Amino acid sequence: MRHAGKLITFEGPDGAGKTTQIQLTAQVLEESGYSVVRTREPGGTRLSEAIRQLLLDPCYKEMSGVTEALLYAGARAQLVSEVLLPALAAGNVVLCDRFVDSSLAYQGYGRGLDLEMLRVINTFALHKLGTFCTVLLDLPPEEGLGRSAGVAERDRLEQENLSFHRRVRDGYLILARDYPGRIKVVNASADPRLVQEQIQEYVMAYLTGRDQGGAFE
Amino acid sequence: MRHAGKLITFEGPDGAGKTTQIQLTAQVLEESGYSVVRTREPGGTRLSEAIRQLLLDPCYKEMSGVTEALLYAGARAQLVSEVLLPALAAGNVVLCDRFVDSSLAYQGYGRGLDLEMLRVINTFALHKLGTFCTVLLDLPPEEGLGRSAGVAERDRLEQENLSFHRRVRDGYLILARDYPGRIKVVNASADPRLVQEQIQEYVMAYLTGRDQGGAFE
Repeated sequence: MRHAGKLITFEGPDGAGKTTQIQLTAQVLEESGYSVVRTREPGGTRLSEAIRQLLLDPCYKEMSGVTEALLYAGARAQLVSEVLLPALAAGNVVLCDRFVDSSLAYQGYGRGLDLEMLRVINTFALHKLGTFCTVLLDLPPEEGLGRSAGVAERDRLEQENLSFHRRVRDGYLILARDYPGRIKVVNASADPRLVQEQIQEYVMAYLTGRDQGGAFE
Repeated sequence: MRHAGKLITFEGPDGAGKTTQIQLTAQVLEESGYSVVRTREPGGTRLSEAIRQLLLDPCYKEMSGVTEALLYAGARAQLVSEVLLPALAAGNVVLCDRFVDSSLAYQGYGRGLDLEMLRVINTFALHKLGTFCTVLLDLPPEEGLGRSAGVAERDRLEQENLSFHRRVRDGYLILARDYPGRIKVVNASADPRLVQEQIQEYVMAYLTGRDQGGAFE
């Protein structure tokens, strides 16, 4: 299945500046004449947002790792079929705040869930999606946690301890090493203007066909 | 992993009398000295019941088949880890109203979702569960729909048309043919007392070790 549009996902810890950088990227692309659709994960559809509520609610401390993986994949499958595939078919550039690599980094490397299980489950969720490009905003966990909300306001995942967030960061970097065609690493500790310049370079390379991106596998 | 307890699941369409028959079975087993735990799917835990709300809400007509399959499996994974495994480890007989065969029958045979995908997803959800026994209350769909609620009160799945429910029934019977060691078919059109007699025969054969049941595969 070929799409006229292109999907770019943004990954990295909370506090890495994803929201700001996506907003700046969208602005630049729109000024260049691209039609841009922004969305986020988990969420982006009415049903996926409802699933997101369950996933991020601190009250569900009993949630098993497998349940969590299946719920993320469920929210993702709905986003793919209801938002991503139609937006891409209509020729849009879609910018997505978190996507499948978040599941591998957080549930797989962070929580120790079986990576092969996560790959299989998410292959079903991404059915028909094809190739995309991923910008990884890399940041040491100490910096990310420092920049994000105070402890009392953190959601269930943010409450995990520092060693968890270290495993998540290492996991992201392993993914970037394993899928260099799809995942581009940006140093998010740098000045936000430099971060945005680097992102634009990767994004334009992908949109103009100099970079091919890659499929999830 | 060995469990002291035993799991018996009940399958079949709405209107086949599952609730009544499970209640009668529980009563008989308790009178015979078994410690019985009753639960249901989707649901049976706080989180699984919240997932159930999403699955059965008629408002989510846009739910994709893959999303539905992942949500059912998510609710199931939580039930397995939070209720079934502890109850079985504690030596209980667990009676469960619907389980994994419902996903294969409704999503697979009914809705046409890839059966291999459903098997793989649910193998993750059932991780460590081991063997169990399944009582299939078989009923022609015309009878089941006639016995259950009026159209206006039907949930999202019950609103599917008759040919869907025919495929579901056929799917259940195919599963019973493919897994004769685990799935026992009872004619639910018969007098409820005869249905209960037949159920007790199968259940006692399993609980006394004359029947071995089988694992999900």
